[in-house]
Amino acid sequence: MLTSTPDPARRNERSRRAILSAAVALIGEIGYDRVSIEAIAKRAGVGKQTIYRWWPSKGAVALEALDDSLATVVDFRDSGDIVEDLRHHMRGVTQLLDSTQIGPVIQGLIAAAQSDPALSRAHLEKVIQPATVAWRDRIARAQDRGELRADADPEAIIDMLFGAMYFRLLLHTRPSEPEQIDAALDIAFQGLR
Amino acid sequence: MLTSTPDPARRNERSRRAILSAAVALIGEIGYDRVSIEAIAKRAGVGKQTIYRWWPSKGAVALEALDDSLATVVDFRDSGDIVEDLRHHMRGVTQLLDSTQIGPVIQGLIAAAQSDPALSRAHLEKVIQPATVAWRDRIARAQDRGELRADADPEAIIDMLFGAMYFRLLLHTRPSEPEQIDAALDIAFQGLR
Repeated sequence: MLTSTPDPARRNERSRRAILSAAVALIGEIGYDRVSIEAIAKRAGVGKQTIYRWWPSKGAVALEALDDSLATVVDFRDSGDIVEDLRHHMRGVTQLLDSTQIGPVIQGLIAAAQSDPALSRAHLEKVIQPATVAWRDRIARAQDRGELRADADPEAIIDMLFGAMYFRLLLHTRPSEPEQIDAALDIAFQGLR
Repeated sequence: MLTSTPDPARRNERSRRAILSAAVALIGEIGYDRVSIEAIAKRAGVGKQTIYRWWPSKGAVALEALDDSLATVVDFRDSGDIVEDLRHHMRGVTQLLDSTQIGPVIQGLIAAAQSDPALSRAHLEKVIQPATVAWRDRIARAQDRGELRADADPEAIIDMLFGAMYFRLLLHTRPSEPEQIDAALDIAFQGLR
Protein backbone atom coordinates (compact mmCIF):
# COMPACT_ATOMS: atom_id res chain seq x y z
CA MET A 1 0.00 0.00 0.00
CA LEU A 2 2.76 2.44 0.95
CA THR A 3 4.36 2.44 -2.51
CA SER A 4 1.13 3.32 -4.29
CA THR A 5 0.23 6.25 -1.98
CA PRO A 6 1.40 9.53 -3.57
CA ASP A 7 3.98 11.29 -1.44
CA PRO A 8 2.71 14.86 -0.97
CA ALA A 9 6.21 16.23 -0.27
CA ARG A 10 7.55 14.70 -3.51
CA ARG A 11 4.58 15.92 -5.51
CA ASN A 12 5.09 19.40 -4.08
CA GLU A 13 8.75 19.36 -5.00
CA ARG A 14 7.87 18.34 -8.56
CA SER A 15 5.33 21.20 -8.81
CA ARG A 16 7.77 23.61 -7.21
CA ARG A 17 10.42 22.81 -9.81
CA ALA A 18 7.91 23.01 -12.66
CA ILE A 19 6.79 26.45 -11.46
CA LEU A 20 10.33 27.79 -11.10
CA SER A 21 11.35 26.42 -14.53
CA ALA A 22 8.26 27.91 -16.13
CA ALA A 23 8.99 31.29 -14.53
CA VAL A 24 12.61 31.31 -15.79
CA ALA A 25 11.61 30.19 -19.30
CA LEU A 26 8.85 32.81 -19.59
CA ILE A 27 11.04 35.65 -18.28
CA GLY A 28 13.69 34.66 -20.84
CA GLU A 29 11.10 34.63 -23.63
CA ILE A 30 9.02 37.76 -23.00
CA GLY A 31 10.79 39.66 -20.21
CA TYR A 32 10.12 39.91 -16.49
CA ASP A 33 7.59 42.75 -16.73
CA ARG A 34 5.24 40.91 -19.06
CA VAL A 35 5.16 37.61 -17.16
CA SER A 36 2.07 37.01 -15.01
CA ILE A 37 1.43 34.43 -12.29
CA GLU A 38 -1.35 33.15 -14.57
CA ALA A 39 1.10 32.51 -17.42
CA ILE A 40 3.54 30.76 -15.07
CA ALA A 41 0.74 28.52 -13.74
CA LYS A 42 -0.42 27.64 -17.26
CA ARG A 43 3.12 26.81 -18.44
CA ALA A 44 3.82 24.75 -15.31
CA GLY A 45 0.51 22.87 -15.59
CA VAL A 46 -0.68 23.92 -12.13
CA GLY A 47 -3.47 26.13 -10.84
CA LYS A 48 -2.83 29.79 -9.96
CA GLN A 49 -3.78 28.99 -6.36
CA THR A 50 -0.91 26.49 -6.11
CA ILE A 51 1.52 29.32 -6.82
CA TYR A 52 -0.17 31.76 -4.43
CA ARG A 53 -0.17 29.09 -1.70
CA TRP A 54 3.65 29.04 -1.75
CA TRP A 55 4.69 32.51 -2.93
CA PRO A 56 3.14 35.94 -2.29
CA SER A 57 4.20 37.46 -5.63
CA LYS A 58 5.96 37.05 -8.97
CA GLY A 59 9.07 38.61 -7.42
CA ALA A 60 9.15 35.88 -4.76
CA VAL A 61 8.90 33.15 -7.44
CA ALA A 62 11.69 34.75 -9.51
CA LEU A 63 13.86 35.16 -6.41
CA GLU A 64 13.51 31.49 -5.48
CA ALA A 65 14.29 30.47 -9.07
CA LEU A 66 17.44 32.60 -8.97
CA ASP A 67 18.44 31.21 -5.57
CA ASP A 68 17.93 27.61 -6.80
CA SER A 69 19.99 28.28 -9.92
CA LEU A 70 22.85 29.92 -8.06
CA ALA A 71 22.93 27.04 -5.56
CA THR A 72 24.00 24.75 -8.42
CA VAL A 73 27.21 26.72 -9.07
CA VAL A 74 28.01 28.79 -5.99
CA ASP A 75 30.61 27.14 -3.84
CA PHE A 76 32.38 28.98 -1.04
CA ARG A 77 35.27 26.54 -0.93
CA ASP A 78 38.45 27.16 0.99
CA SER A 79 41.29 25.38 -0.79
CA GLY A 80 43.87 27.70 0.74
CA ASP A 81 44.23 29.57 -2.58
CA ILE A 82 41.77 32.45 -2.49
CA VAL A 83 42.30 33.53 -6.10
CA GLU A 84 41.43 30.06 -7.42
CA ASP A 85 38.45 29.83 -5.07
CA LEU A 86 37.08 33.19 -6.25
CA ARG A 87 37.75 32.20 -9.88
CA HIS A 88 35.83 28.95 -9.36
CA HIS A 89 32.81 30.79 -7.93
CA MET A 90 32.77 33.64 -10.48
CA ARG A 91 33.31 31.33 -13.48
CA GLY A 92 30.40 29.23 -12.25
CA VAL A 93 28.17 32.31 -12.31
CA THR A 94 29.42 33.27 -15.79
CA GLN A 95 28.66 29.77 -17.08
CA LEU A 96 25.20 29.93 -15.58
CA LEU A 97 24.57 33.27 -17.34
CA ASP A 98 25.83 31.78 -20.58
CA SER A 99 23.92 28.49 -20.51
CA THR A 100 20.57 29.43 -18.94
CA GLN A 101 17.97 32.21 -18.99
CA ILE A 102 18.98 33.33 -15.50
CA GLY A 103 20.47 36.64 -16.82
CA PRO A 104 17.03 38.07 -17.69
CA VAL A 105 15.75 36.88 -14.29
CA ILE A 106 18.51 38.83 -12.51
CA GLN A 107 17.93 41.88 -14.73
CA GLY A 108 14.16 41.77 -14.14
CA LEU A 109 14.47 41.26 -10.39
CA ILE A 110 16.97 44.10 -9.91
CA ALA A 111 14.85 46.37 -12.11
CA ALA A 112 11.68 45.58 -10.12
CA ALA A 113 13.58 45.99 -6.84
CA GLN A 114 14.35 49.65 -7.65
CA SER A 115 10.69 50.52 -7.02
CA ASP A 116 9.86 47.72 -4.55
CA PRO A 117 11.80 48.07 -1.26
CA ALA A 118 10.50 44.73 0.11
CA LEU A 119 11.74 42.87 -2.98
CA SER A 120 15.05 44.76 -2.80
CA ARG A 121 15.50 43.65 0.84
CA ALA A 122 14.53 40.06 0.06
CA HIS A 123 17.00 39.95 -2.86
CA LEU A 124 19.72 41.42 -0.66
CA GLU A 125 19.05 38.94 2.18
CA LYS A 126 18.55 35.83 0.06
CA VAL A 127 21.08 36.30 -2.76
CA ILE A 128 23.59 39.10 -2.18
CA GLN A 129 24.37 38.97 1.54
CA PRO A 130 25.10 35.22 1.83
CA ALA A 131 27.75 35.60 -0.90
CA THR A 132 29.23 38.85 0.42
CA VAL A 133 29.37 37.57 4.01
CA ALA A 134 30.99 34.29 2.94
CA TRP A 135 33.63 36.05 0.83
CA ARG A 136 34.26 38.77 3.41
CA ASP A 137 35.03 36.05 6.00
CA ARG A 138 37.14 34.10 3.50
CA ILE A 139 39.14 37.24 2.61
CA ALA A 140 39.66 38.05 6.31
CA ARG A 141 41.00 34.48 6.84
CA ALA A 142 43.37 34.94 3.89
CA GLN A 143 44.56 38.21 5.44
CA ASP A 144 45.12 36.47 8.81
CA ARG A 145 47.20 33.80 7.08
CA GLY A 146 49.30 36.45 5.33
CA GLU A 147 47.98 35.42 1.88
CA LEU A 148 46.79 39.01 1.29
CA ARG A 149 47.70 42.52 2.43
CA ALA A 150 46.05 43.03 5.83
CA ASP A 151 45.16 46.68 5.19
CA ALA A 152 42.95 46.15 2.11
CA ASP A 153 39.19 46.54 2.66
CA PRO A 154 37.39 43.18 2.08
CA GLU A 155 34.10 44.98 1.29
CA ALA A 156 35.83 46.98 -1.45
CA ILE A 157 37.25 43.80 -3.02
CA ILE A 158 33.76 42.27 -3.14
CA ASP A 159 32.21 45.48 -4.54
CA MET A 160 34.78 45.46 -7.36
CA LEU A 161 34.70 41.77 -8.31
CA PHE A 162 30.92 41.33 -8.18
CA GLY A 163 30.35 44.90 -9.33
CA ALA A 164 32.25 44.16 -12.56
CA MET A 165 29.84 41.30 -13.34
CA TYR A 166 26.67 43.26 -12.53
CA PHE A 167 28.02 46.25 -14.50
CA ARG A 168 28.07 44.24 -17.74
CA LEU A 169 24.76 42.56 -17.03
CA LEU A 170 22.79 45.71 -16.09
CA LEU A 171 24.47 48.35 -18.27
CA HIS A 172 24.48 45.98 -21.27
CA THR A 173 28.02 46.94 -22.23
CA ARG A 174 29.22 43.43 -23.13
CA PRO A 175 28.30 39.85 -22.20
CA SER A 176 29.98 38.39 -19.12
CA GLU A 177 32.86 36.11 -20.10
CA PRO A 178 35.34 33.85 -18.32
CA GLU A 179 38.21 36.04 -19.62
CA GLN A 180 36.72 39.01 -17.77
CA ILE A 181 36.95 37.05 -14.50
CA ASP A 182 40.62 36.28 -15.10
CA ALA A 183 41.41 39.92 -15.98
CA ALA A 184 39.56 41.22 -12.89
CA LEU A 185 41.30 38.80 -10.53
CA ASP A 186 44.67 39.63 -12.09
CA ILE A 187 44.13 43.37 -11.50
CA ALA A 188 42.73 42.93 -7.96
CA PHE A 189 45.52 40.64 -6.78
CA GLN A 190 48.59 41.80 -8.73
CA GLY A 191 47.68 45.49 -9.04
CA LEU A 192 48.21 47.74 -12.02
CA ARG A 193 51.60 49.19 -11.09
CA MET B 1 13.57 97.21 -29.53
CA LEU B 2 16.08 94.38 -29.52
CA THR B 3 16.48 94.31 -25.73
CA SER B 4 12.74 94.09 -25.16
CA THR B 5 12.21 91.28 -27.67
CA PRO B 6 12.20 87.93 -25.83
CA ASP B 7 15.01 85.68 -26.95
CA PRO B 8 13.38 82.32 -27.86
CA ALA B 9 16.64 80.40 -27.36
CA ARG B 10 17.03 81.80 -23.84
CA ARG B 11 13.40 81.17 -22.98
CA ASN B 12 13.78 77.62 -24.25
CA GLU B 13 16.87 77.09 -22.12
CA ARG B 14 14.99 78.34 -19.04
CA SER B 15 12.08 75.95 -19.76
CA ARG B 16 14.49 73.13 -20.51
CA ARG B 17 16.17 73.55 -17.13
CA ALA B 18 12.83 73.87 -15.32
CA ILE B 19 11.63 70.63 -16.95
CA LEU B 20 14.80 68.70 -16.09
CA SER B 21 14.79 69.99 -12.48
CA ALA B 22 11.13 69.08 -12.10
CA ALA B 23 11.80 65.57 -13.43
CA VAL B 24 14.69 64.99 -11.02
CA ALA B 25 12.75 66.37 -8.03
CA LEU B 26 9.67 64.26 -8.78
CA ILE B 27 11.66 61.07 -9.35
CA GLY B 28 13.38 61.67 -5.99
CA GLU B 29 10.04 62.21 -4.27
CA ILE B 30 7.80 59.47 -5.66
CA GLY B 31 10.10 57.21 -7.72
CA TYR B 32 10.70 56.96 -11.47
CA ASP B 33 7.81 54.57 -12.18
CA ARG B 34 5.15 56.85 -10.74
CA VAL B 35 6.28 60.06 -12.46
CA SER B 36 4.26 61.12 -15.53
CA ILE B 37 5.05 63.67 -18.24
CA GLU B 38 1.93 65.48 -17.02
CA ALA B 39 3.30 65.80 -13.48
CA ILE B 40 6.68 67.02 -14.79
CA ALA B 41 4.93 69.67 -16.94
CA LYS B 42 2.79 70.84 -14.02
CA ARG B 43 5.79 71.10 -11.65
CA ALA B 44 7.87 72.92 -14.29
CA GLY B 45 5.04 75.32 -15.12
CA VAL B 46 4.94 74.40 -18.81
CA GLY B 47 2.43 72.66 -21.05
CA LYS B 48 2.71 68.91 -21.76
CA GLN B 49 3.21 69.75 -25.44
CA THR B 50 6.36 71.73 -24.61
CA ILE B 51 7.89 68.54 -23.21
CA TYR B 52 6.73 66.34 -26.09
CA ARG B 53 8.13 68.88 -28.58
CA TRP B 54 11.65 68.28 -27.21
CA TRP B 55 11.62 64.72 -25.85
CA PRO B 56 9.83 61.59 -27.07
CA SER B 57 9.39 60.01 -23.62
CA LYS B 58 9.93 60.23 -19.86
CA GLY B 59 13.08 58.13 -20.29
CA ALA B 60 14.53 60.72 -22.68
CA VAL B 61 13.84 63.54 -20.17
CA ALA B 62 15.44 61.56 -17.32
CA LEU B 63 18.44 60.69 -19.49
CA GLU B 64 19.06 64.34 -20.39
CA ALA B 65 18.71 65.33 -16.71
CA LEU B 66 21.29 62.69 -15.78
CA ASP B 67 23.63 63.79 -18.58
CA ASP B 68 23.36 67.46 -17.50
CA SER B 69 24.06 66.54 -13.86
CA LEU B 70 27.05 64.39 -14.69
CA ALA B 71 28.48 67.16 -16.91
CA THR B 72 28.87 69.32 -13.78
CA VAL B 73 31.28 66.85 -12.13
CA VAL B 74 32.74 64.58 -14.80
CA ASP B 75 36.16 65.72 -15.87
CA PHE B 76 38.45 63.52 -17.95
CA ARG B 77 41.57 65.45 -16.98
CA ASP B 78 45.07 64.23 -17.72
CA SER B 79 47.37 65.57 -15.00
CA GLY B 80 49.90 62.81 -15.62
CA ASP B 81 48.76 61.00 -12.44
CA ILE B 82 46.03 58.56 -13.47
CA VAL B 83 45.09 57.53 -9.93
CA GLU B 84 44.43 61.12 -8.88
CA ASP B 85 42.53 61.80 -12.11
CA LEU B 86 40.28 58.76 -11.59
CA ARG B 87 39.82 59.71 -7.92
CA HIS B 88 38.77 63.23 -8.95
CA HIS B 89 36.16 61.87 -11.39
CA MET B 90 34.78 59.16 -9.10
CA ARG B 91 34.62 61.42 -6.04
CA GLY B 92 32.70 63.94 -8.14
CA VAL B 93 30.10 61.28 -8.94
CA THR B 94 29.91 60.24 -5.27
CA GLN B 95 29.34 63.86 -4.22
CA LEU B 96 26.63 64.23 -6.82
CA LEU B 97 24.89 61.09 -5.49
CA ASP B 98 25.19 62.45 -1.96
CA SER B 99 24.00 66.01 -2.58
CA THR B 100 21.29 65.60 -5.24
CA GLN B 101 18.40 63.30 -6.19
CA ILE B 102 20.35 61.92 -9.14
CA GLY B 103 20.71 58.48 -7.49
CA PRO B 104 16.99 57.64 -7.90
CA VAL B 105 17.18 58.93 -11.50
CA ILE B 106 20.01 56.49 -12.28
CA GLN B 107 18.19 53.65 -10.48
CA GLY B 108 14.94 54.38 -12.33
CA LEU B 109 16.60 54.70 -15.73
CA ILE B 110 18.59 51.48 -15.41
CA ALA B 111 15.50 49.65 -14.14
CA ALA B 112 13.39 50.91 -17.07
CA ALA B 113 16.21 50.09 -19.52
CA GLN B 114 16.02 46.38 -18.59
CA SER B 115 12.71 46.11 -20.46
CA ASP B 116 13.27 48.94 -22.99
CA PRO B 117 16.13 48.17 -25.42
CA ALA B 118 15.97 51.64 -27.06
CA LEU B 119 16.36 53.35 -23.67
CA SER B 120 19.16 50.94 -22.76
CA ARG B 121 21.02 51.84 -25.99
CA ALA B 122 20.47 55.57 -25.48
CA HIS B 123 21.76 55.35 -21.89
CA LEU B 124 24.78 53.37 -23.06
CA GLU B 125 25.57 55.83 -25.88
CA LYS B 126 24.90 59.05 -23.97
CA VAL B 127 26.18 58.25 -20.47
CA ILE B 128 28.21 55.05 -20.23
CA GLN B 129 30.25 54.94 -23.44
CA PRO B 130 31.66 58.51 -23.34
CA ALA B 131 33.09 57.77 -19.88
CA THR B 132 34.37 54.28 -20.70
CA VAL B 133 35.96 55.40 -23.99
CA ALA B 134 37.64 58.40 -22.33
CA TRP B 135 39.05 56.29 -19.49
CA ARG B 136 40.06 53.43 -21.77
CA ASP B 137 42.14 55.88 -23.85
CA ARG B 138 43.55 57.54 -20.73
CA ILE B 139 44.55 54.13 -19.30
CA ALA B 140 46.18 53.16 -22.62
CA ARG B 141 48.21 56.42 -22.54
CA ALA B 142 49.30 55.66 -18.95
CA GLN B 143 50.37 52.18 -20.10
CA ASP B 144 52.35 53.69 -23.02
CA ARG B 145 54.13 56.03 -20.58
CA GLY B 146 55.00 53.11 -18.32
CA GLU B 147 52.78 54.44 -15.49
CA LEU B 148 50.87 51.13 -15.47
CA ARG B 149 51.49 47.48 -16.35
CA ALA B 150 51.07 47.17 -20.11
CA ASP B 151 49.40 43.74 -19.92
CA ALA B 152 46.38 44.73 -17.79
CA ASP B 153 43.04 44.95 -19.61
CA PRO B 154 41.74 48.59 -19.58
CA GLU B 155 38.13 47.38 -20.02
CA ALA B 156 38.45 45.21 -16.92
CA ILE B 157 39.75 48.15 -14.87
CA ILE B 158 36.75 50.25 -15.90
CA ASP B 159 34.30 47.38 -15.22
CA MET B 160 35.70 47.06 -11.70
CA LEU B 161 35.92 50.73 -10.73
CA PHE B 162 32.55 51.81 -12.14
CA GLY B 163 31.02 48.42 -11.35
CA ALA B 164 31.79 48.93 -7.65
CA MET B 165 29.77 52.18 -7.66
CA TYR B 166 26.80 50.74 -9.56
CA PHE B 167 26.86 47.64 -7.36
CA ARG B 168 26.13 49.70 -4.23
CA LEU B 169 23.60 51.90 -5.99
CA LEU B 170 21.58 49.10 -7.64
CA LEU B 171 21.93 46.28 -5.10
CA HIS B 172 21.31 48.70 -2.20
CA THR B 173 24.09 47.19 -0.13
CA ARG B 174 25.48 50.44 1.26
CA PRO B 175 25.55 54.12 0.19
CA SER B 176 28.41 55.20 -2.07
CA GLU B 177 31.10 56.99 -0.09
CA PRO B 178 34.40 58.76 -0.86
CA GLU B 179 36.24 56.16 1.27
CA GLN B 180 34.99 53.43 -1.07
CA ILE B 181 36.67 55.21 -4.00
CA ASP B 182 39.98 55.37 -2.15
CA ALA B 183 39.78 51.69 -1.16
CA ALA B 184 38.92 50.62 -4.74
CA LEU B 185 41.75 52.64 -6.28
CA ASP B 186 44.19 51.29 -3.69
CA ILE B 187 43.26 47.69 -4.54
CA ALA B 188 43.26 48.24 -8.33
CA PHE B 189 46.63 49.98 -8.41
CA GLN B 190 48.58 48.40 -5.55
CA GLY B 191 47.03 44.93 -5.69
CA LEU B 192 46.10 42.68 -2.79
CA ARG B 193 49.29 40.65 -2.53
